[in-house]
Amino acid sequence: MGKNLTTRSEDYSKWYNELVVKADLAENSGVRGCMVIKPYGFAIWEKMQAQLDKMFKETGHENAYFPIFIPKSYLSKEASHVEGFAKECAVVTHYRLKNAEDGSGIVVDEDAKLEEELIVRPTSETIIWDTYRRWVQSYRDLPIMVNQWANVVRWEMRTRLFLRTTEFLWQEGHTAHATREEAMEEAEQMMHVYAEFAEDHMGVPVIKGTKTESERFAGAEETFCIEALMQDGKALQAGTSHFLGQNFAKAFDVKFATKEGGQEYVWATSWGVSTRLMGALIMTHSDDNGLVLPPKLAPIQVVIVPIYKGMEQLDAISERIGPLVKELRSQGVSVKYDKRDTHKPGFKFNEYELKGVPLRIAVGQRDLANGTYEIARRDTLEKETVGADTVVAKVSSLLEEIQDNIYKKALDFRTSHITPVDSYDEFKKVLEEKGGFISAHWDGTRETEDKIKEETKATIRCIPFPPIKEEGKCMVTGEPSGQRVLFAKAY
Amino acid sequence: MGKNLTTRSEDYSKWYNELVVKADLAENSGVRGCMVIKPYGFAIWEKMQAQLDKMFKETGHENAYFPIFIPKSYLSKEASHVEGFAKECAVVTHYRLKNAEDGSGIVVDEDAKLEEELIVRPTSETIIWDTYRRWVQSYRDLPIMVNQWANVVRWEMRTRLFLRTTEFLWQEGHTAHATREEAMEEAEQMMHVYAEFAEDHMGVPVIKGTKTESERFAGAEETFCIEALMQDGKALQAGTSHFLGQNFAKAFDVKFATKEGGQEYVWATSWGVSTRLMGALIMTHSDDNGLVLPPKLAPIQVVIVPIYKGMEQLDAISERIGPLVKELRSQGVSVKYDKRDTHKPGFKFNEYELKGVPLRIAVGQRDLANGTYEIARRDTLEKETVGADTVVAKVSSLLEEIQDNIYKKALDFRTSHITPVDSYDEFKKVLEEKGGFISAHWDGTRETEDKIKEETKATIRCIPFPPIKEEGKCMVTGEPSGQRVLFAKAY
Repeated sequence: MGKNLTTRSEDYSKWYNELVVKADLAENSGVRGCMVIKPYGFAIWEKMQAQLDKMFKETGHENAYFPIFIPKSYLSKEASHVEGFAKECAVVTHYRLKNAEDGSGIVVDEDAKLEEELIVRPTSETIIWDTYRRWVQSYRDLPIMVNQWANVVRWEMRTRLFLRTTEFLWQEGHTAHATREEAMEEAEQMMHVYAEFAEDHMGVPVIKGTKTESERFAGAEETFCIEALMQDGKALQAGTSHFLGQNFAKAFDVKFATKEGGQEYVWATSWGVSTRLMGALIMTHSDDNGLVLPPKLAPIQVVIVPIYKGMEQLDAISERIGPLVKELRSQGVSVKYDKRDTHKPGFKFNEYELKGVPLRIAVGQRDLANGTYEIARRDTLEKETVGADTVVAKVSSLLEEIQDNIYKKALDFRTSHITPVDSYDEFKKVLEEKGGFISAHWDGTRETEDKIKEETKATIRCIPFPPIKEEGKCMVTGEPSGQRVLFAKAY
Repeated sequence: MGKNLTTRSEDYSKWYNELVVKADLAENSGVRGCMVIKPYGFAIWEKMQAQLDKMFKETGHENAYFPIFIPKSYLSKEASHVEGFAKECAVVTHYRLKNAEDGSGIVVDEDAKLEEELIVRPTSETIIWDTYRRWVQSYRDLPIMVNQWANVVRWEMRTRLFLRTTEFLWQEGHTAHATREEAMEEAEQMMHVYAEFAEDHMGVPVIKGTKTESERFAGAEETFCIEALMQDGKALQAGTSHFLGQNFAKAFDVKFATKEGGQEYVWATSWGVSTRLMGALIMTHSDDNGLVLPPKLAPIQVVIVPIYKGMEQLDAISERIGPLVKELRSQGVSVKYDKRDTHKPGFKFNEYELKGVPLRIAVGQRDLANGTYEIARRDTLEKETVGADTVVAKVSSLLEEIQDNIYKKALDFRTSHITPVDSYDEFKKVLEEKGGFISAHWDGTRETEDKIKEETKATIRCIPFPPIKEEGKCMVTGEPSGQRVLFAKAY
C-alpha cells in the first residue's frame, strides 16, 4: 500500500490528524470531542504510564483513587479555581432514564433530579482536599504523597486527537505538606521528574521553567512547567506542577497540629501529565513516512519480515527466525515476526514504517544462503546487512543509537529554534518567518503580556529555570528587565 | 492500640464495614455512594490488576480506551440492555456553570444544554459496538480481542464499600468473532481465567457455572460466572463473562464479509471483574483481628519490627536488619522495616495484624545475642524462632504455605457449606440455620425461581459447570429435573 499521508510541508496540521488515524493510534468517537484510543496507541500510553508510575513510586508516592464526581458546591470553594473551570464542566443533573409516556423512546426521568448537581471532574483538587481534611490531624500525618491515574473531562469547543479532547486520561499527583518549603521543593521536584521522563524516555527535549501569573493553573501560586517544541515551530506544554500554597487547605479547612502545639493550614502541590504527551511524542519525531517512535516506548521494537515464494521457502526462513526471536525476547527486546501470507513484504514494510517500529529485519533467500539479515532503521531509513553471529548485539546497539539519535535530532532542531530578539519588530518577524521559541525581554506586567498575545498570538511559554539573567529592556515598553523569557505560539 | 473491631459473630456486616475503614482500604466520600480507595487498598487492587492484565495478554487480548460518555440514543438501541440499565444512569445534561444572576453563587448555565443527553457509562457495549462498526469490514479484521480498564457508574440506592458503589473500577473485555462457536469459546475461556485468578492469586475458591435467564446480563444470551462463598454463608458473584450472540452487532449494524463472500453479523462477548473483588478478598479470609491477605496480593509481605530501648539498641538491630532486607528484596519479597520511634512494638503488631501483613519478624535483644528472629504468621497467629542462616528460606516457604493454607481453609469452609436438599422445607431450614450453597432440583421455569426468591430471598447462583447430572424432581413443583442447581442468598 502507499501511505497516502499528507506531507508536513504541505499541511502540518492535516499530516498530524491523518497520521494519528492511519497509524492506528486513536480516532474520533460518536461522542463529540471524545476519542477512542486504539490498541496500538494505548500500548504506547501503557509504556509511558509504567515508566512514570515507577518514577513516582521511586520519589515516594503512592496511588489512590478518588470519585469522578464533584459536588457543585465543592468547586465553588476556591474562587479562582471555579473561575478557571466553570465554563467547561460536564454537569450531571439526573440519575435515571425512563420510557417516554408518548412511546417515543427513552427520556430523562424528571422525578430523578439530583438535589445538588455533580460535576464530572475536570481536575480533583476539591474532592481530594475535602478528603484530606479527614486524613490530616497532626504533623505526623504529613506529608501525604498521593497520585491518581484517572480520566477527566473538560468541555472543549475545538478538539484534536490527543492534543485537546473533552475526555482525556492523565495522572494527577496531590501532595500535602507541613511547610511551604517542603511543598515548593516537591512541586519543583516533579517538574524535574517530568523533564527526565520526556527527555530520557520520550526523546523529547524540554525547557523547564515557571509560568507567568496569567498562565498559571487556576488556584496555584506558582506553576512549574516543561515546554517542548514541535516541528512546525509551535510550542507544546507537556507537563505542569503547581505549588498551591494554602489555598485549598483554607478552602476545605485542612489544618494540622504542629510539633510545637499550634494549628496551621496544610501546604499543597498538584502535578499532572496527560494523553497530550502522545501528541508531543508524535509531532516531535515523526516524518512524512509516518510515526517514528523512541525504542523505549515502542510496543514493537523489532519486526521481522520474511521474503519468500511458497511455503517451503517460508518454512526454511521460519526455522531460522524461531531461535532469533527467542534470543531477542530473552534480552528484553519486544519482537514481532510477521509471517502473514495475506500481505506482500512491501505492504508490510510500509505498514511498520507508518507505525514507527524502530527496527525492521528482512530475511530473503540470499540471506538464508549467506547466513545474513538485512536491518533497516526507521529513524534514518538506513539499511545494512549483518551476520547471524552479530545480529543480536547489533539490534541492542541500534536500539540505543536510535533512542539517542532521535533525541539529538529534536534537540538540534530546538536549539536552532530559540532566537534571541531585542525589538518587537524583530520579534514579529521571527515569529512569522521562523517560529520556535523567541527569547526576549519583558517588563513583567500582565498588560504587556496581553498586548503581545493579542497582536501576535504568541504567549510567554515560561520564565526559564534556571533563569537567563541579563540586564535589558522590554521589547515593547522599554522598561527595564533582569532576565529573558521565552515566547512562542503554542498548542 | 486495641483494634476495637466488632467481631464477626457479633455483627458480620458491621465487622466488614469497620474493617474496610480501619485497615485503610477505603472510605466513603462526600459524594453519595462513591468511595475513596486509600493507598493501602489501592496497592492491593494494583496487584490484582497487574496479574489479571498479564493473564488477559497471555490469552491474546490488548487494551484500549473508549469514551466515558454514551449518547442516550445508543443505550436505547439494544432493547433488553436499556431496560437493564436505564434506572441507574447518571445523566449529563449541561456543559457549563455560570455565576447566578442574583449573586448566590454558581449555577448550571441553562444556555449550555446538550442537544442529546449523555450517560456516564454503566458498561460500554453500546459505545464499543458503535466503534467496532468502523473497525470490521471483513473476516480478516476478526477477531477483535480488546479489554479496557475503566471506571463505571451505576446509580445505586444502597451502597457498601467495594461491594456496591455508585462508581466502581473494573475491566471490561469486549471481543468480536466470526462464528458463534468462537465467541462461545471465548466467553467460557474468560470464566476459566477468572476462576484461576480467584483461586491461585486471591486464594478464593469459586464455583463456575452459568446463570439462569433471569439473572443474565442485560443483552446476553448466556452468562458464565464464578461464585464465591463468604464466611457468613452468603454467596458473592465475583466475575461474569457473557456470550452476547449477535445482539449488539444487529443493534449497531456490524457486519463482515465472510471468506465465502457473504455478509454476516459479528458475534460478541463481554466479561468483567471489578473492585467488588476487594470485598470478596476481605470477607473470605479476614478474622476478628483484622485483614488476612494472600501473600501474592499483599502490598507488604513481611514487616520487620525492632524491639529495643534507646538508640544504641536500635542501631545494633538495624545493622543486622539491613542485609536481611536487601536479601529478601533480591528474592522478590516485599519487605517493610518499621523502625518508627513514635510507636511501641505492641502498637505496630496490632497495626500489621489489622492490615493483614502475612509475616511479621520481630528482633529483640535476646535475638540479637542468639542470632535469631521471631517469625509470626498472620493466618494462624503461630510464632516460631529461626536462626539467621535459615530465615530467608523460611520466609519463602512460609509465604507459599500461607497462600496455600488460606485457600484450603476457605475451600474447607465452602465444601462444608454446600448442602444437597430434596424438599422445599429442608431447603428453607438449611437456608435459615446454616446458609451457604444449597444444591437442589429445580424445574427450569422462571415462575418457580421467582417464587423461591420471593419467599426465601435465595436466588439460583448458578447452574454448575460441569453440570451435576442427576435425575430428580423440582423441590417446589415436583416436575422432573435432570441436574441440580446451586441456590444461596447473595451479596
